[in-house]
Amino acid sequence: MRIVLPPEAVPSAWYNVVPDLPAPLEPPLHPGTRQPVGPEDLAPLFPEALILQEVTSDPWVEIPGPVLDVLRLWRPTPLVRARRLEAALGTPARIYYKDESVSPAGSHKPNTAVAQAFYNQQAGTTRLTTETGAGQWGSALAFASALFGLECKVYMVRASFQQKPYRRVLMETWGASVVPSPVADPEHPGSLGTAISDAVADAAGRADTHYALGSVLNHVLLHQTVIGLEAKEQLAKAGETRPDLVIGSCGGGSNLGGLALPFVPDPEVALLAVEPASCPTLTAGRFDYDFGDTAGLTPLLSMYTLGHDFVPPTIHAGGLRYHGDAPIISNLVRHGRMGAAAYPQGKVFEAAVLFARTQGSVPAPETAHAIRAAIDEALRCKETGEERVILFSYSGHGLLDLQAYDDHLAGRLPDA
Amino acid sequence: MRIVLPPEAVPSAWYNVVPDLPAPLEPPLHPGTRQPVGPEDLAPLFPEALILQEVTSDPWVEIPGPVLDVLRLWRPTPLVRARRLEAALGTPARIYYKDESVSPAGSHKPNTAVAQAFYNQQAGTTRLTTETGAGQWGSALAFASALFGLECKVYMVRASFQQKPYRRVLMETWGASVVPSPVADPEHPGSLGTAISDAVADAAGRADTHYALGSVLNHVLLHQTVIGLEAKEQLAKAGETRPDLVIGSCGGGSNLGGLALPFVPDPEVALLAVEPASCPTLTAGRFDYDFGDTAGLTPLLSMYTLGHDFVPPTIHAGGLRYHGDAPIISNLVRHGRMGAAAYPQGKVFEAAVLFARTQGSVPAPETAHAIRAAIDEALRCKETGEERVILFSYSGHGLLDLQAYDDHLAGRLPDA
Repeated sequence: MRIVLPPEAVPSAWYNVVPDLPAPLEPPLHPGTRQPVGPEDLAPLFPEALILQEVTSDPWVEIPGPVLDVLRLWRPTPLVRARRLEAALGTPARIYYKDESVSPAGSHKPNTAVAQAFYNQQAGTTRLTTETGAGQWGSALAFASALFGLECKVYMVRASFQQKPYRRVLMETWGASVVPSPVADPEHPGSLGTAISDAVADAAGRADTHYALGSVLNHVLLHQTVIGLEAKEQLAKAGETRPDLVIGSCGGGSNLGGLALPFVPDPEVALLAVEPASCPTLTAGRFDYDFGDTAGLTPLLSMYTLGHDFVPPTIHAGGLRYHGDAPIISNLVRHGRMGAAAYPQGKVFEAAVLFARTQGSVPAPETAHAIRAAIDEALRCKETGEERVILFSYSGHGLLDLQAYDDHLAGRLPDA
Repeated sequence: MRIVLPPEAVPSAWYNVVPDLPAPLEPPLHPGTRQPVGPEDLAPLFPEALILQEVTSDPWVEIPGPVLDVLRLWRPTPLVRARRLEAALGTPARIYYKDESVSPAGSHKPNTAVAQAFYNQQAGTTRLTTETGAGQWGSALAFASALFGLECKVYMVRASFQQKPYRRVLMETWGASVVPSPVADPEHPGSLGTAISDAVADAAGRADTHYALGSVLNHVLLHQTVIGLEAKEQLAKAGETRPDLVIGSCGGGSNLGGLALPFVPDPEVALLAVEPASCPTLTAGRFDYDFGDTAGLTPLLSMYTLGHDFVPPTIHAGGLRYHGDAPIISNLVRHGRMGAAAYPQGKVFEAAVLFARTQGSVPAPETAHAIRAAIDEALRCKETGEERVILFSYSGHGLLDLQAYDDHLAGRLPDA
């Protein structure tokens, strides 16, 4: 069962969770002085509108018309009741998922890419830089840049650049220029940290250029809240008062935040972050100030972290291989408003294949982490007989991750 | 602008064009006797319900509830007004496309795969065989078989099996077994003709097994008419009386037929088939009885054909590399109700990239043929000032065809 809404139903404002957090957010610190950063510190990287959104405590932020026009190319996204999965599990739980895979780039990432491209265009920026690991974020920014007439330069982790040419081709089809990172060392396989350093250095050095980040920051999570706002309306249409549990996979925290943040004010709704056992930031990291990148160029953020020099194993869920987490997500977990769980990838792919063979769609490896947790909760409900309402984020499709499925089906996937 | 309909709006019956064709269809002939085939000749391959649909002259055929339940996982598909493409072209034409890429398999093919899997399951079939070239049809049948609990064996053209592993992995993720064809000759690169021969021979030799075909036959085009029926309702919702021109790419004819057939009774609506210049069945073939496969195992069909031993160049639009065409499409073209045009692939990929950079979505190479023709008509309208309404079939996405985009962007694509 799919609950669809007309294009007019895309929310007209983003929801800002900051005033509703269980404790005040701690400010980002300047990497040199270790004092709170001011707007002027961020001006070389971001347009003023985004800097204001990063620090605002207004509960709602209006979505500009040109952003809505583009979002309506695919939004509102469907909310789907996973009846076939429920039947296969024999659970009394009702499982819903919010399908963000229908965007042109195949994930939730364009929700913020479009907004960031718009505000940069308005500010006179003509060129954007960013980093990408597996390629979801780079694809989204390339797409958004094409629609707003901006040049886009993507620094792609060299190992991915070499092993996953299709994501590169997708970005180039939208007109982006893609180079392997680190640029300074052609022998280095690269990491998200090195690519962020490259992209930030490029933007800081050119007056026509700004930098765009696909997760972690407050304004990015703000832009993603259209996901949860739509889901609320769709659940009501399906006759549900509220979800009992909201689940999202968590790398930097943007798809999880997008779905979960609008439910923060309702204490009856439990929230769950799911991460890979191989990169267990929330479940095994420490809460501390740390850099967002490897080189220490970015402000220090107050978050759970495995250390900015942590190198996670090369699992297939590339979007979840980040040493830190969004300060907003970290705040919610630290103060008990959100739970966290970690899964090994073998269990995650078993869930992905069951989902594909019941609901029909093949999920991204990142998304499959949320599916695994939803299935486990549904199986727990089967034991207890609880008719809980489970809502999870179907953050992206797996059509550009089929190598991972091949490895799983052939038994080549380490379970770690 | 997207026009979306709720799941309840999926049509409850398929439209059968046969009584509305400009001339009676000529019957298929037995490959041995050259006499019209009877139902008993087809019984080893197809369940009775599909054989009856192949020959029916009823104007409407009811869609079974379990088929509707699965179709509603993604249907009704969106109808989109391509305003950004219109603006880029500066045309007074209004361009709409029906987006079939949103299905789990990424194309229109599941519309018939689901129906065929259902009728086979009802008839007690436990196993289906089919052929696939580039993999769109095999993916669709693998998906549908998973949802109806059938085994699925796909004979994949060996060259594609070796060069395009991701489509194979997608089929295997849904539980299908995939082998390269021809099975008898591991040195042979294979063709759609050899793969049909393998799949038919397998099905004919086992009582538990039937064969499924993804295009060409009457019942396949019948199942696809949900596309055009929905589009009619959506155009009305957008305030359009009718399209002036309906365009679809044409390999066997199923996506074109699905969109165009419901418009056949309205003489004000022009219809256009678009094919590759390298496989110009409708524009340069002869109208004659010919086999559907290379080995001559299938009935002889009355159609436009380049000869069943024709070997088209290996262009990227694998789904359009077929020597023949659906008898229904051939009938419409032969009697002047439908036009036909052929394009070289360089021009087709130019259109695909323009579409991706304006509307955001990356089309399949097959789909890009329809886009090329729609753009050319819109540019003609720019010259004449005509405000024509153009409707085309967005039959599938290009996310598993990115190698073709890489070749195009790098200038490696022959224009032929």
